[in-house]
Amino acid sequence: MDREKERRRFDRSHDPARVMALSDGVFAIVITLLVLEIRVPDLTGVQRLADALSEIRPSFVAFLISFLVVAIAWTGHRDLFALIRLTDRHLVWLNLLYMLPLTLLPFGAALISRHPREMVALTMYGLLLLAIALARLLIWLYAANRPPLMFQPVERRPRALGMLLVTVPAALYVIAILIAGRVPIASLSIYAGVPILYFVTLVFTRAEAPPGAAEPDTAP
Amino acid sequence: MDREKERRRFDRSHDPARVMALSDGVFAIVITLLVLEIRVPDLTGVQRLADALSEIRPSFVAFLISFLVVAIAWTGHRDLFALIRLTDRHLVWLNLLYMLPLTLLPFGAALISRHPREMVALTMYGLLLLAIALARLLIWLYAANRPPLMFQPVERRPRALGMLLVTVPAALYVIAILIAGRVPIASLSIYAGVPILYFVTLVFTRAEAPPGAAEPDTAP
Amino acid sequence: MDREKERRRFDRSHDPARVMALSDGVFAIVITLLVLEIRVPDLTGVQRLADALSEIRPSFVAFLISFLVVAIAWTGHRDLFALIRLTDRHLVWLNLLYMLPLTLLPFGAALISRHPREMVALTMYGLLLLAIALARLLIWLYAANRPPLMFQPVERRPRALGMLLVTVPAALYVIAILIAGRVPIASLSIYAGVPILYFVTLVFTRAEAPPGAAEPDTAP
Amino acid sequence: MDREKERRRFDRSHDPARVMALSDGVFAIVITLLVLEIRVPDLTGVQRLADALSEIRPSFVAFLISFLVVAIAWTGHRDLFALIRLTDRHLVWLNLLYMLPLTLLPFGAALISRHPREMVALTMYGLLLLAIALARLLIWLYAANRPPLMFQPVERRPRALGMLLVTVPAALYVIAILIAGRVPIASLSIYAGVPILYFVTLVFTRAEAPPGAAEPDTAP
Repeated sequence: MDREKERRRFDRSHDPARVMALSDGVFAIVITLLVLEIRVPDLTGVQRLADALSEIRPSFVAFLISFLVVAIAWTGHRDLFALIRLTDRHLVWLNLLYMLPLTLLPFGAALISRHPREMVALTMYGLLLLAIALARLLIWLYAANRPPLMFQPVERRPRALGMLLVTVPAALYVIAILIAGRVPIASLSIYAGVPILYFVTLVFTRAEAPPGAAEPDTAP
Repeated sequence: MDREKERRRFDRSHDPARVMALSDGVFAIVITLLVLEIRVPDLTGVQRLADALSEIRPSFVAFLISFLVVAIAWTGHRDLFALIRLTDRHLVWLNLLYMLPLTLLPFGAALISRHPREMVALTMYGLLLLAIALARLLIWLYAANRPPLMFQPVERRPRALGMLLVTVPAALYVIAILIAGRVPIASLSIYAGVPILYFVTLVFTRAEAPPGAAEPDTAP
Repeated sequence: MDREKERRRFDRSHDPARVMALSDGVFAIVITLLVLEIRVPDLTGVQRLADALSEIRPSFVAFLISFLVVAIAWTGHRDLFALIRLTDRHLVWLNLLYMLPLTLLPFGAALISRHPREMVALTMYGLLLLAIALARLLIWLYAANRPPLMFQPVERRPRALGMLLVTVPAALYVIAILIAGRVPIASLSIYAGVPILYFVTLVFTRAEAPPGAAEPDTAP
Repeated sequence: MDREKERRRFDRSHDPARVMALSDGVFAIVITLLVLEIRVPDLTGVQRLADALSEIRPSFVAFLISFLVVAIAWTGHRDLFALIRLTDRHLVWLNLLYMLPLTLLPFGAALISRHPREMVALTMYGLLLLAIALARLLIWLYAANRPPLMFQPVERRPRALGMLLVTVPAALYVIAILIAGRVPIASLSIYAGVPILYFVTLVFTRAEAPPGAAEPDTAP
């Protein structure tokens, strides 16, 4: 009975509930704060809708890319924590480390929304996206290699897919950073293209996912 | 037993809890950020309360309409997810798609609060409200047609009511957008009138709702 | 069994969980957004700490009063919903109505922080506090008179105390509004004094609370 | 049975759930609002990344220190509430008192990001960090000395560690405030060094923690 008590105490102090609560809060706030960077256009004199739209286009593009980055990060976080039963102190701090570049994203979005062709802005935005990808990779590798923290060990295929969904974007972001000075528009296109690539990968991998894969869409 | 384990794993990875947590976070932040668009009036010299109030009136009207839009959207989201037992990946992404125009609403409110009679501002605000209505329709149609995701199938009357509460506003928003250039005040009145219409519909439909309807007010 | 199913469905659609989640989100955001109104002082040239502090004093006072208003409102909300088992549609909308003046509070705080002696600013801030108090009264009266929505009926003493903790501040706010033009400093003092009065009342009532009162501090 | 009912009522009104929900909301918002103080650099003319980075360095340092302060505070809050079974009214208000300096942190970060060498700014930031440390100490002492509120009494070693992790930073902050006028850079270094010291302490204490310590990393 004393052992049972000890066990309950251990489970309480390693409960992932508040880690998820804080993370959901941060995700929700970051995704909503992004809008503050879209400035209200002047609209002085008679102007066509097209003109006003083109005025806010750079900030809208920055908003949209950043929205998708946060949304993809959140779905990945949700998928990972659906597997996690207990959080130790390292996982708690890895998660906070992950939140660090996430909370900086509204700054990054403001940066490329005001300077969409500046090498420095594109480089810094790329470094942020890279930091988010690496933090995701780190937290995923840490948890996946600690079976006692998980409901069940991660199978080989989902593990490979999980790695792919983070390393490929990371590699593309490195390229985008390297070419930001010479062809800024290509750099921006890579930032915009990665979420599209993500959706394509998702559709493609689900089609051939075997029963028992990490996220099947039909009940077993 | 292995089957039972598989089932629990499936339920965990399809648990709607975090989808609701993120959504409640976004709803709460959007509804609270709206206030940031109400500018503090200057109050230089002796001024009557009425003057100060009339100065902030456009932004207060924009705040109020947007507050009600978010509040109605949230009650609809709560009603829908009270029926949902499991979320698959499509539902997760439809929900994120729904959050997209919602997070843009503070921008829309800022737009019509600063340019309450400009066609372009009224058009863009209308497009936002339309996008919110269509995303609501999409998520509702997707879930209602997938009984395995729901606690029980949606009955005919509540389904018709649910459709009505989204399609009628959507149609009105289209009209408001079309007339924004010629009679901006009528356009704005439609945006303000839709929530009122919603409350009237609600009072009216509840009166004649049969026992077993989606949201009765007396316990069965 | 069909009846049991119906009952579970009813409980799900009347679960107060998301009403509390949204409210906690709004409370947390409002209480945190208040800080945005405290402007960073200029600090040009050598300046003593006292000078810098006196420069931000009006906004700090506005922050502090508003912080306490939100904190008291939140504890009241928590106390009320600890008694509530089910939320019907009226309660959901009364709660949203309650959130309306709450979300406006950062605007009110900005108003009196920039114009701490202006009649118009003090009047509008008072109207906001009055609206919050009245919305609290409304939601409390609605729930307390609907035993099927509550875990148990509210007893006479806690009910009287609950009424007192809302009606007395409301009455004081009316006075503060009425005298805002002639003695603005007295008006502001009332806004600052109401939270203090609240704490005094709390200490006083707890001392003589009989066993079985709403919020005893020792387990029964 | 009446006694059982009374007990459930008591547990409901003393449930820490909403205290944690509000706190997680405040922590998440504060940690995310910090980014709003990092201004987008001008980037006019051709500029190297290093120049842009050095321009935002003071605000980035302020962001980073404040981020870590909030993160450490949150992990401490999570550790404490993992032990807490019931919250009485004093604990609820102590927690709100704790939120007060936390919500002021974005103001403090803005202060030292704009005036990184001004004595007044460094003093006010230090007072904020000191207030956060003292509020943490207060809430920890209150709870740890009230066994009926806790799942189990706090053992001697974790209690000593908990005290150490708050009193040492508090003492360092006092020193930093006292020297802010003469050697501002040393003052800032202390603010930056305390989180590093925290991590070192954590690594060191975990290594020699006996089985049964507050936060072991292997299951009992």
